Amino acid sequence: MDNFTFYSPTYFVFGKDEENKTGSLVKRFGGSKVLIHYGGGSIVRSGLLDRVKDSLNKEGIDFVELGGVQPNPRSGLVYEGIELCRKEKIDFVLAVGGGSTIDSSKAIAAGVVYEGDFWDYFQGKPITKALPIGTILTISAAGSEGSSDAVITNEDGMYKRGSRGEALRPSFSILNPALTQTLPHFQIGCGITDIMAHLFERYFTVTEEVEVTDRLIESLLLTMIHEGPRVIENHDNYHAQANIMWAGMMAHNNSCGVGRDQDWASHDIEHELSAIYDCAHGAGLAVVFPAWMTYTMKHDINRFAQLAVRVWGCQMDYKHPENTARAGIAALKQFLKSIGMPSDFAELGADKKDIEKMAHTACYGDGRDGYIGGFAKLGEADVVEIYRLML
Amino acid sequence: MDNFTFYSPTYFVFGKDEENKTGSLVKRFGGSKVLIHYGGGSIVRSGLLDRVKDSLNKEGIDFVELGGVQPNPRSGLVYEGIELCRKEKIDFVLAVGGGSTIDSSKAIAAGVVYEGDFWDYFQGKPITKALPIGTILTISAAGSEGSSDAVITNEDGMYKRGSRGEALRPSFSILNPALTQTLPHFQIGCGITDIMAHLFERYFTVTEEVEVTDRLIESLLLTMIHEGPRVIENHDNYHAQANIMWAGMMAHNNSCGVGRDQDWASHDIEHELSAIYDCAHGAGLAVVFPAWMTYTMKHDINRFAQLAVRVWGCQMDYKHPENTARAGIAALKQFLKSIGMPSDFAELGADKKDIEKMAHTACYGDGRDGYIGGFAKLGEADVVEIYRLML
Repeated sequence: MDNFTFYSPTYFVFGKDEENKTGSLVKRFGGSKVLIHYGGGSIVRSGLLDRVKDSLNKEGIDFVELGGVQPNPRSGLVYEGIELCRKEKIDFVLAVGGGSTIDSSKAIAAGVVYEGDFWDYFQGKPITKALPIGTILTISAAGSEGSSDAVITNEDGMYKRGSRGEALRPSFSILNPALTQTLPHFQIGCGITDIMAHLFERYFTVTEEVEVTDRLIESLLLTMIHEGPRVIENHDNYHAQANIMWAGMMAHNNSCGVGRDQDWASHDIEHELSAIYDCAHGAGLAVVFPAWMTYTMKHDINRFAQLAVRVWGCQMDYKHPENTARAGIAALKQFLKSIGMPSDFAELGADKKDIEKMAHTACYGDGRDGYIGGFAKLGEADVVEIYRLML
Repeated sequence: MDNFTFYSPTYFVFGKDEENKTGSLVKRFGGSKVLIHYGGGSIVRSGLLDRVKDSLNKEGIDFVELGGVQPNPRSGLVYEGIELCRKEKIDFVLAVGGGSTIDSSKAIAAGVVYEGDFWDYFQGKPITKALPIGTILTISAAGSEGSSDAVITNEDGMYKRGSRGEALRPSFSILNPALTQTLPHFQIGCGITDIMAHLFERYFTVTEEVEVTDRLIESLLLTMIHEGPRVIENHDNYHAQANIMWAGMMAHNNSCGVGRDQDWASHDIEHELSAIYDCAHGAGLAVVFPAWMTYTMKHDINRFAQLAVRVWGCQMDYKHPENTARAGIAALKQFLKSIGMPSDFAELGADKKDIEKMAHTACYGDGRDGYIGGFAKLGEADVVEIYRLML
């Protein structure tokens, strides 16, 4: 196990109706004038936005609103948010939505207190300060409610980049599973896939002797395999939604990823897909992961076999562990299909003519040195092969 | 799943040689004059205390020392520590040791800033403030390095009581697995048992539909079953010690115990044993848990069978699940024996003549209403029966 630090100081408030505590939580964490940042009309129609405003009003906390966050959140709205916060002297950013809204809020919160262009932070500059952030989560997926990360799409070229910094950890996050019950079928499937992807990215490692984090990751995957089909069958299954919501946070606050190298090539490969075709991130990951696994399993057959046995319940083929590894990948494919996810370029709306371009950007974009992935180091030719496995 | 809050704002610094960062960490969390609190001479002999002092000196941080913490830490030393801190105008308490040292430090940190008798906090008064606390952990066991709890033994009658409060969460905790390699065999076994006990206390619940926390607990138990025998066989196995150390923290910071009722009767039952016989807490738990399980399994046979299958690898007897439940308890007994733990009153040095007295104190002490346990509600007669199963 490698040396590491772990710091997750977010105050999590979990359960039914907890959004009614928003006002007192903003006050606890020092907010006096709030930007409420959100996406489309669903939080208006559902009455959630009104409940949040009521809660702020009860505590006498002033606020302004900025809606319009899109999936794969855009740099343009971040600039708009930063300007608005400065004009209105905002001291707290409150995200009401899913990962896109939270990431947009994080970028705004960091940008407001930075004199330069916020995009610097998405080109490698470390984030050391930001306005305090609170979140009210409406989609179990990205894990941004407990993470130190944010991903933004630059509209000038439509490419996605990530940033990271302890200052981006939310001060508080309200997780009410009931808020996820009204989501469309497809979006729930994408969320399940995204959570599992965060676990796979951490599972595949070259670091030896990390049994505790192996087991923690496996436990969260087993939870997703048990609860995923239950919420797909019945969105109103509060307890299944609740289990997924906590698993989604734990999958990405890094408590199960410490002390080990992680991979993350699949996210780089997917980011090119969603940047060009604007497909849902989870749907893109559903197509990428089986292909990435098929291509890279040769790097550590026994790790893939371990996943297959412990998580998918496959029988171990002790003589030919590669058969077990393949059975695990087949089980993943079957699972993703069962929750309504696409399985290839055609279902995703992607086009094979872009493969070379995407592979190049994945490997060389954003100052990368031509290689991606911590578990299996992949060059441009490897990534081309992986995209081809998605045809 | 029940509504809950979860807040674990401790900054964890994990790995080899990390105690050399003590000075900068104390500074980061606002300390300028430190009480170094510790137990016996082992941290002096090993050179750890010198390294910690060097690190503080390098940052120009002043300190005073208070050693002498015993296992089952005593109220007397807490009073002494409070007085010393006030006299020396201490603003940060640094624990160097295991759970006893950390708990004693927590009690001192809370007592210094409280006008009344610190024991009030161990009789139910909520702790709302304390000096900031840092820990350098030398024993994987109690989980106090990441928890909001402390347990102190009152010398006036030798009874143990616990207290809890967010203010008791350490600001930082340094976890260097190499520090645990020099521990005696027996103490390592006790630590393994204590960690597993924290998981069992959370596992046995009446709350329905908590798959994610069931699975997380199981993953940590599986880790202990894998790594425990490896450290017993070879104390110098750094990676096995590392896996246990992170599991020990995760077992008790409550990330795997949220949203569910917990039991904790076994801790109450054990506290009477270690208060009277001054036995090691882990050794006491090794005797208590199999007895408690045998007595209470009738309350939810299927939960015991689930544990037996998922954690101990027992075959499910679908026709007679109680056979599977029993096989799991037998596997636990065998495991505890293999790591050198006692299995009955005689090996623990306990005496059956005290059973009635202990059962009464467990159920009625500290203002309790005659019943203990969240999973199985136990009265005095039940607790007597459980003690008798330990003969």
